[in-house]
Amino acid sequence: MSFIKINLTNLAHNYNYLKNIVGPKVTCAAAVKANAYGIGDQQVVETLSKQGCNDFFVAHIEEALNLRKFTKANIYCLHGVLNMQESELLVRNNIIPILNTAKQCQIYNDYAKTQEKKLPAILNFDTGMGRLGISPNAKIEIENIDIAYIMSHLACADESEHEQNHIQLSEFKKLKNIFPGHKFTLANSAGIFLGQDYHFDLVRPGAALYGIETNSKYPVLPVVSVYAKIMQIRTLEYDMHVGYGASALMPKGSVALIAEYGYADGYPRSLSNKAYCYYQGHYLKIMGKVSMDLIIIDATNLPEALLAEITHVELLGENIKLADLAAQVDTIGYEILTSLSKRAKKLFMPSLS
Amino acid sequence: MSFIKINLTNLAHNYNYLKNIVGPKVTCAAAVKANAYGIGDQQVVETLSKQGCNDFFVAHIEEALNLRKFTKANIYCLHGVLNMQESELLVRNNIIPILNTAKQCQIYNDYAKTQEKKLPAILNFDTGMGRLGISPNAKIEIENIDIAYIMSHLACADESEHEQNHIQLSEFKKLKNIFPGHKFTLANSAGIFLGQDYHFDLVRPGAALYGIETNSKYPVLPVVSVYAKIMQIRTLEYDMHVGYGASALMPKGSVALIAEYGYADGYPRSLSNKAYCYYQGHYLKIMGKVSMDLIIIDATNLPEALLAEITHVELLGENIKLADLAAQVDTIGYEILTSLSKRAKKLFMPSLS
Repeated sequence: MSFIKINLTNLAHNYNYLKNIVGPKVTCAAAVKANAYGIGDQQVVETLSKQGCNDFFVAHIEEALNLRKFTKANIYCLHGVLNMQESELLVRNNIIPILNTAKQCQIYNDYAKTQEKKLPAILNFDTGMGRLGISPNAKIEIENIDIAYIMSHLACADESEHEQNHIQLSEFKKLKNIFPGHKFTLANSAGIFLGQDYHFDLVRPGAALYGIETNSKYPVLPVVSVYAKIMQIRTLEYDMHVGYGASALMPKGSVALIAEYGYADGYPRSLSNKAYCYYQGHYLKIMGKVSMDLIIIDATNLPEALLAEITHVELLGENIKLADLAAQVDTIGYEILTSLSKRAKKLFMPSLS
Repeated sequence: MSFIKINLTNLAHNYNYLKNIVGPKVTCAAAVKANAYGIGDQQVVETLSKQGCNDFFVAHIEEALNLRKFTKANIYCLHGVLNMQESELLVRNNIIPILNTAKQCQIYNDYAKTQEKKLPAILNFDTGMGRLGISPNAKIEIENIDIAYIMSHLACADESEHEQNHIQLSEFKKLKNIFPGHKFTLANSAGIFLGQDYHFDLVRPGAALYGIETNSKYPVLPVVSVYAKIMQIRTLEYDMHVGYGASALMPKGSVALIAEYGYADGYPRSLSNKAYCYYQGHYLKIMGKVSMDLIIIDATNLPEALLAEITHVELLGENIKLADLAAQVDTIGYEILTSLSKRAKKLFMPSLS
C-alpha cells in the first residue's frame, strides 16, 4: 500500500535545534494540535518527551483529553473553556486552559471559587492579530487564577521584516507592567527566528519541528515523506486524453503509471497536470486530473530497468520538497501536512533515545 | 464543539431517486470508497442496505476488509489484487476483486487454480479514460474466473454533451461480442443521467447519493452540513488587520466572530477572504487567512439579538451550497467532502426505516 514515512530522528533534531537557539533559560514547548499537524500526536509527544520536552499545546479540549491518555507532561488547551463543565473536565484531567476572553476568565475564575483553590491557566492577550485573545484593555476577573503564563500570538512572524512584529512585541511588553513577575510566552516557530527579544520564558514551535521552513535562514530537516503505490504500468496503444474531463493528452506509446493516491488522501486536486513525483533520479509529471483515489503519471522517459522494478513513487520527501509542493497550489506546507492521508500506512522511523 | 450533520433521510431519498431512474431491471449499487466520500461508510452502508442496496464498491483492500466487519452484502474492491496474498485475503473475506490489468487477471486466475475452483471477479476494461483498466485488446487468462460483471468507467459523464461519452459507450458495447451473456456495468452517478443506454445491468453511483450534483437537470438532496462553534465574539477597539499575514482590514467597531474550524478540518485555506458562512438569514464573510484551527468572521451587520444567542455558524449546508463552496476555490464537491473534519462531531440524523 501507499505509505507515509515519519522521520522521528529528524523531528528530534529539529526540536534540539530550536532548543539550542533559545538557550537553556527558555522553555521549549511543542504545538501538537491537529494530531501534531497531521503527523501523529502520540509518536510526536513520545519522541519529544525523550528530548526533554515537557510542555505541549493543543487546540481542542478533545485533543487535550486524548493527549492525557499517553503523557504526564503539561498540556495546555489553546481554545480554553466556554462553561463550567469544560472547566471541570480540564481540571479533573490536569489540563491547563488558555483563557482567550474576559468571559472565559470569569467562567474559570468562578469555577475555581467553587473548588476553593487557585487553578492554573494561561492568559492569552490579543496584541494585534485580531483572532482569539483578551483585549489588553479588558477588565478581567482572575483572583482565583494561578497565572502559568501571559501569552500572545504573532500574525506575521514568517515575514521577519513585517512591521506588525515590532508592534505586537511592543504591545506584549506593555503587559509586563500589568503582570510583573509573571512568565511570558509569545513565539511560535517563526517567532523564535525573529531573535531573543521574542523568546521570553517559553516558546511554542510547531511548524519547524515538523520540517516546515518558516525562515530560509534557519533550515530544518524534513520529517514527512509520502510514497504512492503503483497499481498499473501501461503503454498507451493510441493517443489518449487521460483522466476525468480528458484534460491531458498522452501520445501513443507513452508509458503511464497509475498510483493509489488521490485527493481523498490529501493530495490536492489543484495539483492536476502540474505536480511532479520522483523515482530514482527521475522527475515524473502528474497527468490529467487527480482523482479521489488515483493519479496518472507520465513515466515515458523512465528507463526500462527502472520500470521493471518500480513499486512506489515519491510524492513528497527529500526530492519533492514540502514548500515547493505547497507553493505550486498557492498554499503552505501546514495545509499539506494536516491533510495527510488517513488511508496510507504511517511508518514511524526510530527516534533518538 | 463544531459538528457535521449527516442527513441519512436525504441519502436514502437520493438512492431511491437513482433506483427509480434506472428502473427495476437494473441493480443500483453504491460507491462507498474513501469512507463513503468522507461521510462515514458504516452509517451509509446500513442506511442503503435498508433501502435494498446489496452491492458496495470500495477502492482499497483495507476499505473492503473494514466494510466486511459490518455488512454481509456484496463488496467489490476497485483496486484489485497485486499478488497471491491479496487474492487469498479477499477470497477468505468473501470480497470480489475488480481486475484492472492482464497481470491482475493472471494472478487471480493462478490463485483460483490453487483453490481448484472458479472464483468471482469483475473485469474492468479501459474504454478511453487512460486510468486503471485492461486494454480491450489484451490477452487475458480467465479460465478459472467467474465473471461477475464486465466493467468500464466514464471520464466525462458530467459533461453530457462530451463526445468521449459516445466513444466510450461504443467501445464498451464491443465487449458484448467478446463476453456474450455476461452482465455489464458502466455508469457512475453522472453516467446514470446520460440515459438508459448507459445503464446496462448495474450502476455504481457515489456522488449523487451524497448530495453532489453532477447534472443540474437531476437535482439531488444535500446530505452534509457543517456548523462551526463560535469561540469568541469581539468588537474591535481599533482598525485591525486580522489573521495571519494581516491580510484583511476590519475597521474599528467591527464585530468579529472567532470560530473553531480551520484548514486542519478540511475547510480549504484558499477560501481565505473569500467564502461566506450563514446564520439566521445573514451571510457573513470569512475575514483574513483561514488558520489551522480557527476562522475569523465579520458579523458587524448581524443584529444584536442574534449576536446574543449565536453559538454556531453554518459553513456548508442548506444555505451554503456544496457546489458553490467548491467552485469558489476551483474544485469539486467531492474534494470538499473527502476532506471533512476528523475533529468535528458527526451527527447522523435518523434514516428512513
